[in-house]
Amino acid sequence: MTSGETITFYGYFRSSSAYRCRIAFNLKQVPYGFVSVHLRKDGGQQKTPEYRALNPQALVPTMVSGDFTLTQSLAIVEWLDETQGGPKLLPEDPNLRAKVRAFAQVIACDIHPLQNLRVLDYLKTELGHDQPVADAWCRRWLGDGLRSCEDLVAKESESGRFCFGDEPGLADICLVPQIFSAHRFGVDLTDMPRLREIHAACEALPAFADAHPSRQPDTEA
Amino acid sequence: MTSGETITFYGYFRSSSAYRCRIAFNLKQVPYGFVSVHLRKDGGQQKTPEYRALNPQALVPTMVSGDFTLTQSLAIVEWLDETQGGPKLLPEDPNLRAKVRAFAQVIACDIHPLQNLRVLDYLKTELGHDQPVADAWCRRWLGDGLRSCEDLVAKESESGRFCFGDEPGLADICLVPQIFSAHRFGVDLTDMPRLREIHAACEALPAFADAHPSRQPDTEA
Repeated sequence: MTSGETITFYGYFRSSSAYRCRIAFNLKQVPYGFVSVHLRKDGGQQKTPEYRALNPQALVPTMVSGDFTLTQSLAIVEWLDETQGGPKLLPEDPNLRAKVRAFAQVIACDIHPLQNLRVLDYLKTELGHDQPVADAWCRRWLGDGLRSCEDLVAKESESGRFCFGDEPGLADICLVPQIFSAHRFGVDLTDMPRLREIHAACEALPAFADAHPSRQPDTEA
Repeated sequence: MTSGETITFYGYFRSSSAYRCRIAFNLKQVPYGFVSVHLRKDGGQQKTPEYRALNPQALVPTMVSGDFTLTQSLAIVEWLDETQGGPKLLPEDPNLRAKVRAFAQVIACDIHPLQNLRVLDYLKTELGHDQPVADAWCRRWLGDGLRSCEDLVAKESESGRFCFGDEPGLADICLVPQIFSAHRFGVDLTDMPRLREIHAACEALPAFADAHPSRQPDTEA
Protein backbone atom coordinates (compact mmCIF):
# COMPACT_ATOMS: atom_id res chain seq x y z
CA MET A 1 0.00 0.00 0.00
CA THR A 2 1.01 3.60 -0.31
CA SER A 3 1.25 5.40 2.99
CA GLY A 4 -1.78 7.56 2.18
CA GLU A 5 -4.08 4.62 1.50
CA THR A 6 -6.86 3.93 3.98
CA ILE A 7 -6.88 0.61 5.81
CA THR A 8 -10.15 -1.21 6.38
CA PHE A 9 -10.16 -3.64 9.26
CA TYR A 10 -12.78 -6.39 9.63
CA GLY A 11 -13.10 -7.58 13.20
CA TYR A 12 -15.33 -8.49 16.10
CA PHE A 13 -15.13 -6.98 19.57
CA ARG A 14 -14.66 -10.28 21.42
CA SER A 15 -12.26 -11.97 18.98
CA SER A 16 -8.86 -12.43 20.58
CA SER A 17 -7.06 -12.13 17.25
CA ALA A 18 -8.92 -8.93 16.28
CA TYR A 19 -8.05 -7.57 19.74
CA ARG A 20 -4.34 -8.19 19.00
CA CYS A 21 -4.57 -6.17 15.79
CA ARG A 22 -6.41 -3.31 17.51
CA ILE A 23 -3.56 -3.01 20.02
CA ALA A 24 -1.03 -3.00 17.19
CA PHE A 25 -2.90 -0.31 15.23
CA ASN A 26 -3.02 1.78 18.40
CA LEU A 27 0.65 1.31 19.30
CA LYS A 28 1.71 2.17 15.74
CA GLN A 29 -0.85 5.01 15.66
CA VAL A 30 -2.16 3.81 12.29
CA PRO A 31 -5.73 4.95 11.57
CA TYR A 32 -8.21 2.48 10.07
CA GLY A 33 -11.85 2.13 9.18
CA PHE A 34 -13.61 -0.59 11.14
CA VAL A 35 -16.17 -3.06 9.77
CA SER A 36 -17.88 -5.28 12.33
CA VAL A 37 -18.28 -8.94 11.36
CA HIS A 38 -20.74 -10.31 13.90
CA LEU A 39 -19.79 -13.93 14.52
CA ARG A 40 -23.17 -14.84 16.02
CA LYS A 41 -25.67 -12.72 14.04
CA ASP A 42 -27.34 -13.87 10.78
CA GLY A 43 -25.92 -17.37 11.27
CA GLY A 44 -22.45 -15.80 11.41
CA GLN A 45 -21.63 -12.81 9.20
CA GLN A 46 -18.16 -14.29 8.64
CA LYS A 47 -19.77 -17.03 6.54
CA THR A 48 -21.26 -14.81 3.81
CA PRO A 49 -19.87 -15.19 0.26
CA GLU A 50 -18.81 -11.51 0.36
CA TYR A 51 -16.69 -12.00 3.46
CA ARG A 52 -15.33 -15.37 2.32
CA ALA A 53 -14.08 -13.63 -0.84
CA LEU A 54 -11.82 -11.60 1.47
CA ASN A 55 -11.07 -14.36 3.95
CA PRO A 56 -11.56 -17.95 2.72
CA GLN A 57 -11.24 -19.23 6.29
CA ALA A 58 -14.38 -17.29 7.28
CA LEU A 59 -12.56 -16.07 10.37
CA VAL A 60 -11.74 -12.59 11.67
CA PRO A 61 -9.65 -10.51 11.31
CA THR A 62 -9.04 -9.36 7.74
CA MET A 63 -7.27 -6.19 6.67
CA VAL A 64 -7.74 -4.50 3.29
CA SER A 65 -5.61 -1.69 1.90
CA GLY A 66 -6.27 -0.85 -1.74
CA ASP A 67 -6.02 -4.14 -3.65
CA PHE A 68 -4.02 -5.78 -0.85
CA THR A 69 -5.97 -8.15 1.39
CA LEU A 70 -4.37 -9.82 4.37
CA THR A 71 -5.63 -12.35 6.92
CA GLN A 72 -4.14 -13.82 10.11
CA SER A 73 -3.46 -11.53 13.05
CA LEU A 74 0.27 -12.19 13.45
CA ALA A 75 0.85 -11.56 9.76
CA ILE A 76 -1.11 -8.31 10.05
CA VAL A 77 0.88 -7.16 13.09
CA GLU A 78 4.23 -7.91 11.44
CA TRP A 79 3.08 -6.20 8.21
CA LEU A 80 2.12 -3.09 10.18
CA ASP A 81 5.51 -3.18 11.87
CA GLU A 82 7.40 -3.51 8.59
CA THR A 83 5.47 -0.95 6.54
CA GLN A 84 4.17 1.70 8.96
CA GLY A 85 5.80 4.28 11.19
CA GLY A 86 5.61 4.40 14.96
CA PRO A 87 7.43 2.35 17.59
CA LYS A 88 8.84 -1.04 16.57
CA LEU A 89 6.81 -4.04 17.75
CA LEU A 90 9.61 -6.56 17.16
CA PRO A 91 13.24 -6.15 18.30
CA GLU A 92 16.09 -5.72 15.81
CA ASP A 93 18.27 -8.47 17.27
CA PRO A 94 17.47 -11.70 15.37
CA ASN A 95 17.76 -13.98 18.41
CA LEU A 96 15.51 -11.81 20.54
CA ARG A 97 13.09 -11.30 17.64
CA ALA A 98 12.87 -15.09 17.26
CA LYS A 99 12.07 -15.49 20.95
CA VAL A 100 9.35 -12.84 20.71
CA ARG A 101 7.83 -14.68 17.74
CA ALA A 102 8.01 -18.00 19.58
CA PHE A 103 6.20 -16.51 22.58
CA ALA A 104 3.53 -15.04 20.27
CA GLN A 105 3.13 -18.42 18.58
CA VAL A 106 2.67 -20.27 21.87
CA ILE A 107 -0.45 -18.14 22.21
CA ALA A 108 -1.52 -17.82 18.57
CA CYS A 109 -0.90 -21.47 17.66
CA ASP A 110 -1.22 -23.51 20.81
CA ILE A 111 -3.75 -21.69 23.00
CA HIS A 112 -6.13 -19.52 21.04
CA PRO A 113 -7.21 -21.76 18.10
CA LEU A 114 -8.39 -24.41 20.53
CA GLN A 115 -10.97 -22.03 21.98
CA ASN A 116 -12.09 -20.68 18.63
CA LEU A 117 -15.86 -20.45 18.14
CA ARG A 118 -15.94 -23.10 15.37
CA VAL A 119 -14.04 -25.53 17.63
CA LEU A 120 -16.36 -24.97 20.60
CA ASP A 121 -19.35 -25.32 18.25
CA TYR A 122 -17.97 -28.68 17.09
CA LEU A 123 -17.51 -29.86 20.69
CA LYS A 124 -21.08 -28.87 21.54
CA THR A 125 -23.01 -29.61 18.35
CA GLU A 126 -21.19 -32.53 16.76
CA LEU A 127 -19.76 -34.17 19.88
CA GLY A 128 -22.72 -33.34 22.13
CA HIS A 129 -20.87 -31.74 25.03
CA ASP A 130 -22.41 -29.07 27.25
CA GLN A 131 -21.07 -25.62 28.08
CA PRO A 132 -19.25 -26.69 31.29
CA VAL A 133 -17.27 -29.29 29.29
CA ALA A 134 -16.43 -26.66 26.66
CA ASP A 135 -15.38 -24.24 29.42
CA ALA A 136 -13.14 -26.86 31.04
CA TRP A 137 -11.59 -27.54 27.62
CA CYS A 138 -10.75 -23.82 27.25
CA ARG A 139 -9.39 -23.62 30.79
CA ARG A 140 -7.07 -26.57 30.15
CA TRP A 141 -5.35 -25.06 27.10
CA LEU A 142 -5.34 -21.56 28.56
CA GLY A 143 -3.82 -22.77 31.83
CA ASP A 144 -1.15 -25.01 30.25
CA GLY A 145 -0.26 -22.45 27.61
CA LEU A 146 -0.05 -19.43 29.88
CA ARG A 147 2.10 -21.37 32.37
CA SER A 148 4.54 -21.99 29.48
CA CYS A 149 4.45 -18.26 28.71
CA GLU A 150 5.21 -17.49 32.37
CA ASP A 151 8.22 -19.85 32.21
CA LEU A 152 9.49 -18.30 28.97
CA VAL A 153 9.29 -14.77 30.37
CA ALA A 154 10.57 -15.67 33.86
CA LYS A 155 13.82 -17.09 32.51
CA GLU A 156 14.28 -14.38 29.86
CA SER A 157 17.13 -12.03 30.76
CA GLU A 158 15.74 -9.33 28.43
CA SER A 159 12.35 -9.35 30.15
CA GLY A 160 11.51 -6.06 31.82
CA ARG A 161 8.43 -3.98 32.34
CA PHE A 162 6.98 -5.89 29.36
CA CYS A 163 7.55 -9.46 28.10
CA PHE A 164 10.80 -8.78 26.25
CA GLY A 165 12.02 -5.40 27.40
CA ASP A 166 10.76 -2.08 28.64
CA GLU A 167 8.63 -1.28 25.58
CA PRO A 168 5.49 -3.18 24.59
CA GLY A 169 5.61 -5.33 21.45
CA LEU A 170 4.29 -8.40 19.66
CA ALA A 171 4.51 -10.68 22.72
CA ASP A 172 2.48 -8.29 24.88
CA ILE A 173 0.01 -7.78 22.01
CA CYS A 174 -0.70 -11.51 22.10
CA LEU A 175 -0.59 -11.86 25.87
CA VAL A 176 -3.19 -9.27 26.87
CA PRO A 177 -6.13 -10.67 24.84
CA GLN A 178 -5.29 -14.15 26.13
CA ILE A 179 -5.36 -12.94 29.74
CA PHE A 180 -8.76 -11.42 28.96
CA SER A 181 -9.90 -14.92 27.87
CA ALA A 182 -8.32 -16.44 30.95
CA HIS A 183 -10.36 -14.13 33.18
CA ARG A 184 -13.49 -14.92 31.18
CA PHE A 185 -13.04 -18.66 31.66
CA GLY A 186 -11.93 -18.40 35.29
CA VAL A 187 -8.33 -19.59 34.83
CA ASP A 188 -6.29 -19.25 38.03
CA LEU A 189 -3.29 -16.97 37.36
CA THR A 190 -1.90 -17.11 40.90
CA ASP A 191 1.25 -18.97 39.86
CA MET A 192 1.95 -16.55 36.98
CA PRO A 193 3.24 -13.43 38.73
CA ARG A 194 5.28 -12.11 35.78
CA LEU A 195 2.33 -12.35 33.39
CA ARG A 196 0.10 -10.53 35.89
CA GLU A 197 2.67 -7.75 36.31
CA ILE A 198 3.11 -7.37 32.55
CA HIS A 199 -0.65 -7.44 32.01
CA ALA A 200 -1.08 -4.60 34.53
CA ALA A 201 1.69 -2.57 32.86
CA CYS A 202 -0.02 -3.03 29.47
CA GLU A 203 -3.50 -2.15 30.72
CA ALA A 204 -2.12 1.15 32.03
CA LEU A 205 -1.32 2.19 28.44
CA PRO A 206 -4.08 3.80 26.34
CA ALA A 207 -3.09 1.70 23.28
CA PHE A 208 -4.07 -1.44 25.19
CA ALA A 209 -6.95 0.02 27.20
CA ASP A 210 -8.62 1.49 24.09
CA ALA A 211 -8.41 -1.88 22.32
CA HIS A 212 -10.31 -3.70 25.08
CA PRO A 213 -13.40 -5.65 23.92
CA SER A 214 -15.61 -3.61 26.26
CA ARG A 215 -14.79 -0.38 24.39
CA GLN A 216 -15.42 -1.16 20.71
CA PRO A 217 -18.10 0.16 18.31
CA ASP A 218 -19.66 -3.34 18.17
CA THR A 219 -19.37 -4.11 21.90
CA GLU A 220 -22.32 -5.94 23.43
CA ALA A 221 -23.08 -6.60 27.06
CA MET B 1 24.91 -17.65 17.62
CA THR B 2 28.18 -17.41 15.74
CA SER B 3 28.13 -19.01 12.32
CA GLY B 4 30.51 -21.75 13.41
CA GLU B 5 28.35 -22.91 16.31
CA THR B 6 26.64 -26.28 16.06
CA ILE B 7 22.86 -26.42 16.11
CA THR B 8 21.12 -29.17 18.04
CA PHE B 9 17.60 -29.95 16.92
CA TYR B 10 15.12 -31.82 19.12
CA GLY B 11 12.36 -33.43 17.06
CA TYR B 12 10.27 -36.48 16.35
CA PHE B 13 9.90 -38.13 12.96
CA ARG B 14 6.11 -37.86 12.78
CA SER B 15 5.71 -34.35 14.21
CA SER B 16 4.41 -31.98 11.56
CA SER B 17 6.21 -29.00 13.09
CA ALA B 18 9.54 -30.86 13.33
CA TYR B 19 9.06 -31.89 9.67
CA ARG B 20 8.72 -28.18 8.73
CA CYS B 21 12.04 -27.39 10.39
CA ARG B 22 13.79 -30.35 8.72
CA ILE B 23 12.75 -29.02 5.31
CA ALA B 24 14.02 -25.55 6.23
CA PHE B 25 17.38 -26.88 7.46
CA ASN B 26 17.70 -28.80 4.18
CA LEU B 27 16.71 -25.89 1.93
CA LYS B 28 19.14 -23.58 3.75
CA GLN B 29 21.76 -26.36 3.81
CA VAL B 30 22.38 -25.78 7.50
CA PRO B 31 23.86 -28.83 9.30
CA TYR B 32 22.51 -29.83 12.69
CA GLY B 33 22.76 -32.55 15.28
CA PHE B 34 19.49 -34.40 15.84
CA VAL B 35 18.09 -35.54 19.19
CA SER B 36 14.99 -37.71 19.05
CA VAL B 37 12.26 -36.89 21.57
CA HIS B 38 9.94 -39.87 21.45
CA LEU B 39 6.43 -38.57 22.11
CA ARG B 40 5.03 -42.01 23.00
CA LYS B 41 7.94 -43.75 24.77
CA ASP B 42 8.55 -43.56 28.55
CA GLY B 43 5.20 -41.81 29.01
CA GLY B 44 6.37 -39.14 26.56
CA GLN B 45 10.03 -38.08 26.53
CA GLN B 46 8.88 -34.49 25.92
CA LYS B 47 7.56 -34.42 29.51
CA THR B 48 10.88 -35.00 31.31
CA PRO B 49 12.20 -32.15 33.49
CA GLU B 50 15.33 -32.01 31.30
CA TYR B 51 13.33 -31.41 28.15
CA ARG B 52 10.89 -29.04 29.82
CA ALA B 53 13.87 -26.90 30.85
CA LEU B 54 14.46 -26.35 27.13
CA ASN B 55 10.80 -26.22 26.09
CA PRO B 56 8.28 -25.38 28.84
CA GLN B 57 5.43 -26.41 26.54
CA ALA B 58 6.76 -29.98 26.45
CA LEU B 59 6.29 -30.00 22.69
CA VAL B 60 8.68 -30.57 19.79
CA PRO B 61 10.58 -29.00 18.15
CA THR B 62 13.30 -27.14 20.05
CA MET B 63 16.51 -25.76 18.61
CA VAL B 64 19.62 -25.03 20.67
CA SER B 65 22.68 -23.15 19.47
CA GLY B 66 25.20 -22.31 22.19
CA ASP B 67 23.24 -20.58 24.94
CA PHE B 68 20.38 -19.70 22.58
CA THR B 69 17.30 -21.91 22.88
CA LEU B 70 14.34 -21.47 20.55
CA THR B 71 10.95 -23.19 20.34
CA GLN B 72 8.06 -22.99 17.84
CA SER B 73 8.63 -24.14 14.27
CA LEU B 74 7.72 -20.91 12.46
CA ALA B 75 10.03 -18.90 14.72
CA ILE B 76 12.81 -21.43 14.02
CA VAL B 77 12.27 -21.25 10.25
CA GLU B 78 12.31 -17.43 10.22
CA TRP B 79 15.38 -17.37 12.46
CA LEU B 80 17.19 -19.72 10.08
CA ASP B 81 16.18 -17.47 7.20
CA GLU B 82 17.40 -14.31 8.92
CA THR B 83 20.69 -15.62 10.30
CA GLN B 84 21.89 -18.35 7.93
CA GLY B 85 23.03 -18.44 4.30
CA GLY B 86 21.34 -20.29 1.47
CA PRO B 87 18.18 -19.42 -0.48
CA LYS B 88 15.68 -17.05 1.10
CA LEU B 89 12.56 -18.73 2.49
CA LEU B 90 10.51 -15.51 2.70
CA PRO B 91 10.20 -12.91 -0.07
CA GLU B 92 11.66 -9.41 0.25
CA ASP B 93 8.46 -7.58 -0.71
CA PRO B 94 6.59 -6.80 2.53
CA ASN B 95 3.12 -7.42 1.07
CA LEU B 96 4.08 -10.77 -0.40
CA ARG B 97 6.00 -11.71 2.73
CA ALA B 98 2.88 -10.95 4.80
CA LYS B 99 0.78 -13.20 2.55
CA VAL B 100 3.31 -16.01 2.89
CA ARG B 101 3.20 -15.67 6.67
CA ALA B 102 -0.61 -15.64 6.64
CA PHE B 103 -0.69 -18.85 4.59
CA ALA B 104 1.81 -20.47 6.98
CA GLN B 105 -0.32 -19.38 9.94
CA VAL B 106 -3.50 -20.86 8.47
CA ILE B 107 -1.68 -24.17 8.79
CA ALA B 108 0.39 -23.57 11.91
CA CYS B 109 -2.38 -21.88 13.91
CA ASP B 110 -5.70 -23.13 12.58
CA ILE B 111 -5.05 -26.68 11.33
CA HIS B 112 -2.11 -28.33 13.01
CA PRO B 113 -2.61 -27.53 16.74
CA LEU B 114 -6.07 -29.11 16.62
CA GLN B 115 -4.58 -32.48 15.74
CA ASN B 116 -1.75 -32.26 18.23
CA LEU B 117 -1.17 -35.40 20.30
CA ARG B 118 -2.17 -33.71 23.59
CA VAL B 119 -5.46 -32.55 22.05
CA LEU B 120 -6.31 -35.99 20.67
CA ASP B 121 -5.37 -37.50 24.04
CA TYR B 122 -7.82 -35.10 25.73
CA LEU B 123 -10.59 -36.05 23.29
CA LYS B 124 -10.00 -39.73 23.94
CA THR B 125 -9.03 -39.86 27.61
CA GLU B 126 -10.91 -36.98 29.22
CA LEU B 127 -13.90 -36.77 26.89
CA GLY B 128 -14.14 -40.52 26.25
CA HIS B 129 -14.19 -40.50 22.44
CA ASP B 130 -12.88 -43.36 20.35
CA GLN B 131 -10.31 -43.27 17.56
CA PRO B 132 -12.86 -42.84 14.71
CA VAL B 133 -14.24 -39.70 16.40
CA ALA B 134 -10.70 -38.36 16.84
CA ASP B 135 -9.94 -39.14 13.19
CA ALA B 136 -13.11 -37.35 12.02
CA TRP B 137 -12.12 -34.38 14.18
CA CYS B 138 -8.72 -34.22 12.42
CA ARG B 139 -10.29 -34.61 8.98
CA ARG B 140 -12.64 -31.71 9.65
CA TRP B 141 -9.92 -29.18 10.48
CA LEU B 142 -7.56 -30.53 7.82
CA GLY B 143 -10.26 -30.37 5.14
CA ASP B 144 -11.55 -26.90 6.04
CA GLY B 145 -8.08 -25.48 6.50
CA LEU B 146 -6.54 -26.91 3.35
CA ARG B 147 -9.50 -25.71 1.27
CA SER B 148 -8.75 -22.20 2.55
CA CYS B 149 -5.12 -22.69 1.55
CA GLU B 150 -6.22 -23.80 -1.93
CA ASP B 151 -8.30 -20.60 -2.23
CA LEU B 152 -5.45 -18.38 -1.05
CA VAL B 153 -3.03 -19.89 -3.57
CA ALA B 154 -5.54 -20.13 -6.45
CA LYS B 155 -6.25 -16.40 -6.35
CA GLU B 156 -2.62 -15.38 -5.75
CA SER B 157 -1.11 -13.77 -8.83
CA GLU B 158 2.43 -14.52 -7.58
CA SER B 159 1.71 -18.23 -7.24
CA GLY B 160 3.81 -20.37 -9.56
CA ARG B 161 5.52 -23.72 -9.36
CA PHE B 162 5.33 -23.28 -5.57
CA CYS B 163 2.79 -21.52 -3.35
CA PHE B 164 4.13 -17.99 -3.80
CA GLY B 165 6.49 -18.11 -6.76
CA ASP B 166 8.89 -20.44 -8.51
CA GLU B 167 11.11 -21.13 -5.54
CA PRO B 168 10.05 -23.05 -2.43
CA GLY B 169 9.66 -21.13 0.82
CA LEU B 170 7.90 -20.89 4.16
CA ALA B 171 4.42 -21.57 2.74
CA ASP B 172 5.56 -24.78 1.03
CA ILE B 173 7.48 -25.78 4.16
CA CYS B 174 4.19 -25.68 6.08
CA LEU B 175 2.05 -27.18 3.32
CA VAL B 176 3.94 -30.41 2.69
CA PRO B 177 3.79 -31.81 6.25
CA GLN B 178 0.10 -30.93 6.39
CA ILE B 179 -0.58 -32.81 3.14
CA PHE B 180 1.27 -35.75 4.73
CA SER B 181 -1.23 -35.56 7.63
CA ALA B 182 -4.12 -35.23 5.19
CA HIS B 183 -3.09 -38.46 3.48
CA ARG B 184 -2.69 -40.15 6.86
CA PHE B 185 -6.22 -39.20 7.92
CA GLY B 186 -7.78 -39.88 4.51
CA VAL B 187 -8.74 -36.29 3.64
CA ASP B 188 -10.07 -35.97 0.08
CA LEU B 189 -7.85 -33.52 -1.84
CA THR B 190 -9.73 -33.82 -5.15
CA ASP B 191 -10.97 -30.22 -5.06
CA MET B 192 -7.49 -28.85 -4.25
CA PRO B 193 -5.65 -29.12 -7.58
CA ARG B 194 -3.14 -26.34 -6.91
CA LEU B 195 -2.11 -27.81 -3.58
CA ARG B 196 -1.63 -31.21 -5.19
CA GLU B 197 0.52 -29.73 -7.97
CA ILE B 198 2.64 -27.77 -5.49
CA HIS B 199 2.98 -30.80 -3.23
CA ALA B 200 4.26 -32.86 -6.18
CA ALA B 201 6.74 -30.13 -7.14
CA CYS B 202 8.04 -30.06 -3.55
CA GLU B 203 8.33 -33.82 -3.20
CA ALA B 204 10.54 -33.86 -6.30
CA LEU B 205 13.15 -31.80 -4.43
CA PRO B 206 15.69 -33.63 -2.21
CA ALA B 207 15.27 -30.99 0.54
CA PHE B 208 11.64 -32.04 0.96
CA ALA B 209 12.07 -35.74 0.18
CA ASP B 210 14.91 -36.14 2.68
CA ALA B 211 12.80 -34.49 5.41
CA HIS B 212 9.95 -36.99 5.03
CA PRO B 213 8.91 -38.79 8.25
CA SER B 214 9.67 -42.16 6.64
CA ARG B 215 13.36 -41.29 6.25
CA GLN B 216 14.48 -40.08 9.69
CA PRO B 217 16.88 -41.64 12.22
CA ASP B 218 13.95 -42.22 14.61
CA THR B 219 11.46 -43.45 11.98
CA GLU B 220 9.23 -46.32 13.06
CA ALA B 221 6.91 -48.45 10.97
